[in-house]
Amino acid sequence: VKTVRVQLQPSYDVLIGKGLLASAGRRIERLVGASRYLVVTSRTVGKLYADQLIASFEGRTPVSVIGIPDGERAKNPAMLARVLEQFAKTGADRKSCVIALGGGVIGDLAGFAASVYMRGIPVVQIPTTLLAQVDAAIGGKTAVNLAAGKNLVGTFHQPRLVIADTSVLQTLPQRELRAGFFEVIKCGAIRDAALFRLMERDATRLLAGNEAALARVITAAVKVKANVVAADERESDLRRILNFGHTIGHALEAATAYCTLLHGEAVGLGMIAAAEIGVNAGVTPEAVAERVIACTLAYGPLPKPRVTMGSVLRALVLDKKAQDSTPRFVLLNAIGSTVIRKDVPGAVIKSASRSVVA
Amino acid sequence: VKTVRVQLQPSYDVLIGKGLLASAGRRIERLVGASRYLVVTSRTVGKLYADQLIASFEGRTPVSVIGIPDGERAKNPAMLARVLEQFAKTGADRKSCVIALGGGVIGDLAGFAASVYMRGIPVVQIPTTLLAQVDAAIGGKTAVNLAAGKNLVGTFHQPRLVIADTSVLQTLPQRELRAGFFEVIKCGAIRDAALFRLMERDATRLLAGNEAALARVITAAVKVKANVVAADERESDLRRILNFGHTIGHALEAATAYCTLLHGEAVGLGMIAAAEIGVNAGVTPEAVAERVIACTLAYGPLPKPRVTMGSVLRALVLDKKAQDSTPRFVLLNAIGSTVIRKDVPGAVIKSASRSVVA
Repeated sequence: VKTVRVQLQPSYDVLIGKGLLASAGRRIERLVGASRYLVVTSRTVGKLYADQLIASFEGRTPVSVIGIPDGERAKNPAMLARVLEQFAKTGADRKSCVIALGGGVIGDLAGFAASVYMRGIPVVQIPTTLLAQVDAAIGGKTAVNLAAGKNLVGTFHQPRLVIADTSVLQTLPQRELRAGFFEVIKCGAIRDAALFRLMERDATRLLAGNEAALARVITAAVKVKANVVAADERESDLRRILNFGHTIGHALEAATAYCTLLHGEAVGLGMIAAAEIGVNAGVTPEAVAERVIACTLAYGPLPKPRVTMGSVLRALVLDKKAQDSTPRFVLLNAIGSTVIRKDVPGAVIKSASRSVVA
Repeated sequence: VKTVRVQLQPSYDVLIGKGLLASAGRRIERLVGASRYLVVTSRTVGKLYADQLIASFEGRTPVSVIGIPDGERAKNPAMLARVLEQFAKTGADRKSCVIALGGGVIGDLAGFAASVYMRGIPVVQIPTTLLAQVDAAIGGKTAVNLAAGKNLVGTFHQPRLVIADTSVLQTLPQRELRAGFFEVIKCGAIRDAALFRLMERDATRLLAGNEAALARVITAAVKVKANVVAADERESDLRRILNFGHTIGHALEAATAYCTLLHGEAVGLGMIAAAEIGVNAGVTPEAVAERVIACTLAYGPLPKPRVTMGSVLRALVLDKKAQDSTPRFVLLNAIGSTVIRKDVPGAVIKSASRSVVA
């Protein structure tokens, strides 16, 4: 088992390893000691893993399971309300603890519910997608979507513990595994050249689901995320570097109404665009851009979405991270090192965007 | 204008005085400097005061008004979702600021919405009921109700400023004014003997709505609340003393399904019961109990609700502040001084409860 400490107030551990679900209950009970555990999970993940998680508590403490429909559409305020009513119905009190068992949607929704139930009870994150293991489960951001946009509502609520079991990734659809690798590449590109080299070298083993290789890159990616959020818990300057590939990426997701691309895929396309923008803005050496593009494509296929350029450019300006309608770009000046630019000319943005849409 | 500083992280002012609504916009703009103001208000209060508040901004900054149905039933997760969608529709961003114009329901709901919109934007509280001015608007607690119980969901989100305009109390129904005085009496009883004496002396003037007398007791009550929450931002031992009269009070509200009694009235009845419990538990001198009961009744009428004893006792055990199903009682050992007891015999609780139900 590898352990990464997230140095926040309060700090917590991310555990990474094979078959961790079997010991999850024991570890959680030792750390949290709640009077009741509320497992929030999706239908699909629940069927696969809820019994194993419950069994790991060995009957010492009551465990309730709250099932949520699959998919991003469940991440809305009405579902949040339903989850909270369920907490109350099961008799949850201030000494109860939420366990989020699932992907990013479950982590965001369950974390939000934990942060507001009786004004805050603990949450343990057990992310079951690669993307959630390296990104969503760490850093304490919770959210639901509004009709007007994604993640427009949320809280900061740090988990007490994060358990990333590489074995659960064996049942993850191949497309979702690939989508997760794009976020891992991103972590390497912005802060960890050695991780980036691992991603270049180990593509075959990783795509085949080799658990040792997975644990190695997940641990490195978690370290990048943990270090960045620890230095900057509330989103401000440093945390922005995590948005490498996300500016165009978010715009592509918005332009496709979040229906065609997985988030990780959008980030993959966004990194390709950001590499091109970096070159044209005179920030990114050509050789660096080529490595980013080649490594990203190695985890493809990465189909370009069919959208109009107009819809992409409109989405760029409406992004909630844009200030005064000027999109900010995180660009690489080397593998493992970033610069932030908000003066990228419109023509450069357009040309790079064109290269990632069909 | 009187100013009470609430020493929290960050600290903020509570302004108390006559006609403050006319200068609210100028004061808020100077302090917050938001790009847009989102006024959340109830239908009734909005009709009376929204125009005056908007006018006080003198057209310098866009102001949107979001109207909410009157009454406690609006304080639910679905309405929270509607308010958040409205924020997004008006184009609210991270530089926007929420203004809660109304009673406790509006303050709790708008404060909650502000705390989660884009993971937190500022809120200014302009409480328009006496109860909200001396209690709900200060201390940063926000909430909505679940079907399973009141205030089961919420956040801590301190306002940037609280404006308590005594002039708006002129349009407050007499019954709500009286309900607010019970919370003021409570503040005196637990921490400020001079305030308690003012409440004994000035009943006639206060019930007639004399603004100088109102400003004096509101300021003193706000000081009590501000000092307690500053010493103890998160609810723990010290903050508990604010629950004087609330243990039986909450049980009476729950037993009447929150339909018959105003919260302040329940607290009034609860203080009478707590005085009796204090005497029987050997904590409260008889003379102190008599003064509490006489002062409370001076702000009546205080009709006893028609409920069964069984429903009151069940509600006492289910209270979210009860630990291990043992209700805790805040009792007075003198005017201005409290003790907390969790070993009050059932017979004493029953006898005191009986004296406040019909």
